[in-house]
Amino acid sequence: MKNKAVVLLSGGLDSATTLAIANSENKDCYALSFNYSQRHKIEIQAAKKIAEDFCVSGHKILDMDLSQIGGSALTDPSIDIPSSPTTGIPVTYVPARNTIFLAFALAYAETLNANEIYIGVNAVDYSGYPDCRPEYVTAFQDLANLATRAGVEGNMLRISTPLIKMTKAEIISKAVELNVNLALTVSCYQPDTQGRACGICDSCRFRQKGFRDAGLKDPTRYAS
Amino acid sequence: MKNKAVVLLSGGLDSATTLAIANSENKDCYALSFNYSQRHKIEIQAAKKIAEDFCVSGHKILDMDLSQIGGSALTDPSIDIPSSPTTGIPVTYVPARNTIFLAFALAYAETLNANEIYIGVNAVDYSGYPDCRPEYVTAFQDLANLATRAGVEGNMLRISTPLIKMTKAEIISKAVELNVNLALTVSCYQPDTQGRACGICDSCRFRQKGFRDAGLKDPTRYAS
Repeated sequence: MKNKAVVLLSGGLDSATTLAIANSENKDCYALSFNYSQRHKIEIQAAKKIAEDFCVSGHKILDMDLSQIGGSALTDPSIDIPSSPTTGIPVTYVPARNTIFLAFALAYAETLNANEIYIGVNAVDYSGYPDCRPEYVTAFQDLANLATRAGVEGNMLRISTPLIKMTKAEIISKAVELNVNLALTVSCYQPDTQGRACGICDSCRFRQKGFRDAGLKDPTRYAS
Repeated sequence: MKNKAVVLLSGGLDSATTLAIANSENKDCYALSFNYSQRHKIEIQAAKKIAEDFCVSGHKILDMDLSQIGGSALTDPSIDIPSSPTTGIPVTYVPARNTIFLAFALAYAETLNANEIYIGVNAVDYSGYPDCRPEYVTAFQDLANLATRAGVEGNMLRISTPLIKMTKAEIISKAVELNVNLALTVSCYQPDTQGRACGICDSCRFRQKGFRDAGLKDPTRYAS
């Protein structure tokens, strides 16, 4: 019998590739996505299609209103998305987002009796978000094993981050190797009403550079 | 200027006393409550009144549907609340609940620039939930300081658990000392439609024993 795993699936390139990797590692995959009042809600539709493409055993989409917390350009429409690189942690950082997402993944894993959570964090071609670093992931795993019934009973849970040390180009090559339909993935933080990517936000720029470095054509439709 | 603190406020006896303690320690208190599809939604009304009673600087009530995750008698109506003590971790345990609550508190603290989160967990007169133990709280604090912009910038966050080693009787005495209106607090997991407590769930039993041990009268209205 396959081991069950929860896979955090935003609908972007990294999480889709992470799902493909979990699948290739013969895991019984349960995807988890969030409708958290993000600007780029279109990614949820992408997540649905990607989950179907990989025939996951389950896909939950949880609603929560992070705009009530605010503090990020992704959840507060009054803060603009930067169109050029900034120093330090950018305004697109969402306070404690990965901690919130991993906490729900932990709850889902516990009810499924899954002993693994996959998350597509990356600490190479990334925006410098603190909750994407390896030491953060290790701390969450330590916490998870103290937090739950499963941990108390000795069923240790693992947080798997297969992309953490890969460049964006390496992630894209891996995605192609594992037959991820890259046209389904959405990276842009502020797609227009026709679903076209802006081409100027951090996330678009990392994606475009990744495709260039990998020598591959990006199937994304860009507004300009 | 007072230091800001986020206080998790369920509307129960413990969290109300925790708010009173934070207040007595001269903190600028911001309460955080959750509407998480719990059976005992009445506690949210209690939380509102308690927050008003202590003139908090802010009170957020976040909606999230933990019944989509399930796995607990508190969020799944098909699982009965036990009417007598059980061995091990009881079915009222909600998978990863405190991790989810603390993750949101961390996000709220970060947007407020608060450097402290108060949570009324207790590891003496409690139901054996794994996410109420001191080692769990320490692990969350370690995680919090790796997870956020504030942590990266060296503004360390503290998770304060003033009740963790107190008996229920000691908590009740402290509540009385700090003028908590105990009649506002709701402990019961399954109050009836008139708001009367069942008197038989774990939470009612701990409360009743606590009042007896403290030699005080419980203002709760019980159904029987």
